[in-house]
Amino acid sequence: MLVSMSNTSTEMMGGFADAAASLTTIAKGFHVRGWLSGTSGNLSAVVNRDPLQLAMSPSGVDKGELTAAQVLLIDDQAQVLSGHSAKPSDETLLHLRIVRDRHAGAVLHTHSVWNTILSDVYASQRGIGIEGYEMLKGLSGVRTHEHREWLPIIENSQDMNFLATAVGESLSRNPQAHAFLLHRHGLYSWGADIQEAKRHIEILEFLLETIGRTLTIKR
Amino acid sequence: MLVSMSNTSTEMMGGFADAAASLTTIAKGFHVRGWLSGTSGNLSAVVNRDPLQLAMSPSGVDKGELTAAQVLLIDDQAQVLSGHSAKPSDETLLHLRIVRDRHAGAVLHTHSVWNTILSDVYASQRGIGIEGYEMLKGLSGVRTHEHREWLPIIENSQDMNFLATAVGESLSRNPQAHAFLLHRHGLYSWGADIQEAKRHIEILEFLLETIGRTLTIKR
Amino acid sequence: MLVSMSNTSTEMMGGFADAAASLTTIAKGFHVRGWLSGTSGNLSAVVNRDPLQLAMSPSGVDKGELTAAQVLLIDDQAQVLSGHSAKPSDETLLHLRIVRDRHAGAVLHTHSVWNTILSDVYASQRGIGIEGYEMLKGLSGVRTHEHREWLPIIENSQDMNFLATAVGESLSRNPQAHAFLLHRHGLYSWGADIQEAKRHIEILEFLLETIGRTLTIKR
Amino acid sequence: MLVSMSNTSTEMMGGFADAAASLTTIAKGFHVRGWLSGTSGNLSAVVNRDPLQLAMSPSGVDKGELTAAQVLLIDDQAQVLSGHSAKPSDETLLHLRIVRDRHAGAVLHTHSVWNTILSDVYASQRGIGIEGYEMLKGLSGVRTHEHREWLPIIENSQDMNFLATAVGESLSRNPQAHAFLLHRHGLYSWGADIQEAKRHIEILEFLLETIGRTLTIKR
Repeated sequence: MLVSMSNTSTEMMGGFADAAASLTTIAKGFHVRGWLSGTSGNLSAVVNRDPLQLAMSPSGVDKGELTAAQVLLIDDQAQVLSGHSAKPSDETLLHLRIVRDRHAGAVLHTHSVWNTILSDVYASQRGIGIEGYEMLKGLSGVRTHEHREWLPIIENSQDMNFLATAVGESLSRNPQAHAFLLHRHGLYSWGADIQEAKRHIEILEFLLETIGRTLTIKR
Repeated sequence: MLVSMSNTSTEMMGGFADAAASLTTIAKGFHVRGWLSGTSGNLSAVVNRDPLQLAMSPSGVDKGELTAAQVLLIDDQAQVLSGHSAKPSDETLLHLRIVRDRHAGAVLHTHSVWNTILSDVYASQRGIGIEGYEMLKGLSGVRTHEHREWLPIIENSQDMNFLATAVGESLSRNPQAHAFLLHRHGLYSWGADIQEAKRHIEILEFLLETIGRTLTIKR
Repeated sequence: MLVSMSNTSTEMMGGFADAAASLTTIAKGFHVRGWLSGTSGNLSAVVNRDPLQLAMSPSGVDKGELTAAQVLLIDDQAQVLSGHSAKPSDETLLHLRIVRDRHAGAVLHTHSVWNTILSDVYASQRGIGIEGYEMLKGLSGVRTHEHREWLPIIENSQDMNFLATAVGESLSRNPQAHAFLLHRHGLYSWGADIQEAKRHIEILEFLLETIGRTLTIKR
Repeated sequence: MLVSMSNTSTEMMGGFADAAASLTTIAKGFHVRGWLSGTSGNLSAVVNRDPLQLAMSPSGVDKGELTAAQVLLIDDQAQVLSGHSAKPSDETLLHLRIVRDRHAGAVLHTHSVWNTILSDVYASQRGIGIEGYEMLKGLSGVRTHEHREWLPIIENSQDMNFLATAVGESLSRNPQAHAFLLHRHGLYSWGADIQEAKRHIEILEFLLETIGRTLTIKR
């Protein structure tokens, strides 16, 4: 039994090293595009399901300079398991909620100029309906540009327990949603694995920029 | 005769390796500029005329990370010849149609924010007339900025046979066109070879961005 | 005593080499983002407090090509101590004023398109009130998006003594401000150390771009 | 005498190699910023005054992939001296005119989205008055943001002799101008040497983008 656990643990930690490396690469790429300015945004990936364990970006770090060694291993209570003195992101509770409610393998959160603007312009409608774009087919399970994606907008809060509850309710009300916006804060998306979560972010950032720039033209 | 065929085949495959390498370089460059976000867009180049064979980007791959080894060799029925288990892009039929109807040596398809927006703003006019710009001289055969380029807009569809027919009709009606837009989907352009196709995309993306941003100013 | 001074000097110069390297890295990164075009902008970091000594970018140098060897060591009278024939930035007096009045460890000054535009659009209000954005939490001491940041706008001048006095008065009147704008000129921010100053610039450039682009949408 | 000529020639060719390398570096940097898309734009530098000889970018080359070996040596009649079969840019006559009339050491020509748009928006005024921006101090001889720069707009033409004459007349009428725009075509600037010409382009592209984006806001 000890051997078996050791095997499991080794396997998991291999998963952790891979996940940490992938999150670091994604962080650098997103930072170059201006989606993680300052020390904003955070990234996570599931490395073990039972018990639940996540690779999680630390709080307060410049994401353009994130190293795999800085990525934390946390448990389902947001406690750090990997011996670092660093603190996981304040928004770890949101990541855990999404991982549980959506059975996601990875969660990515970006602060882009356009996602911030649209979360504000559409705030009174509490969401943005996106339809008719070929790019929607990049979202998991979507087969046609005629798909209508509802991107909920959730009011921002500094109370993470309150916000995690609001996120949970939004996920329940919008079972088909691939992402949500926090008002004047940023975009959360997820996927079955890190690559799918990254694709969802790229697709949604593209669509939000497209919708935002269209609003600068429409007469 | 066997020797001769072998020579031909070797020559063709050398062309395939070069084409795959060039398409990969172009894919990375276009991805950095935001023209191939998510797994969108696709690229092809003719490597043999008789029988017709194309180097073609695979479906569902992040174009920023495309490798030459992932590029597929396909025949004129969109069947994969190169032993990969990968699937060519869904839009291979459009590439084949353009290659045949325009005798093109390469076809490139981008999803940029500005080409998406303009395909929408001008949809009711079923095309965009572009004239008076020096940049037009970058299109093959154009000698003066006084040239008028008509960029047709074709309604989007998930039925690739239907869409290939619509593309064929548009190519017939617009024999001078260097490119077309699919509505809320993206830009297709082509050229006698890969470099010319790349130049056409750069020129048209520049002109569409210029026209789009001009619309944000005009009072 | 001589030994002790020598030690201090060695320690300080180690600090100078580190500061020069960090400023150079930041200069290149900001130049790529278009915040230091031409030879605009300047950067400094405190390397000794008593007597006050700063690592300071030279005047008239392309910041995309700045080398650590070009960074100057200056004293509290803006005199060059490091034996270079180069001239420190004309705006050294502003850096010295900020370092003294705010006990800052580093001062960074950027010329971006959006900070230039907003310094003009809001000039008659003599400042920009920024509130409600999660990104504000990237500013030192700010704990909630409900924070209101007042970013003063100071009239531009070529008389550096006059301008340093105006900056000093603005700093006094706005003791909570993390930065200020010079009208049609650029953004100054600072921090306890180089990393904090860099984070403040990234946060404020993000917020100014967000506010500016929002103005292109609002109907 | 032969030795003396040989020395002169060697010196000049050393200048040519340096100039070709610098132009290549600048071309790549400008291409990344979208100022030389397709095969647009061209660059030159004086390598000998008497007789007049220029390092000149070739026609029809992707400026993002320009190599020093592709740069041509031309004489004052735009004839290629360096044994290449390549053709110099069609606009070589404009470069020669500017070099003679302004005693310039280098001439750079960019096609950016914003310079194209503003050359159109202000076409009826035949120029753009730029004043009040600190960035103007990056133009040679300008000491204050209160400077007013008049950037003439010249009607585009495919007749290079006609256009060179129009450029010459504009240079005469605007002896203080650091640059001009060709209508819906692009920006020409120059300087005493390559670095100054590059700085002028960066400054003017910044100012044109700033003015253009301001027009998207002004209510």
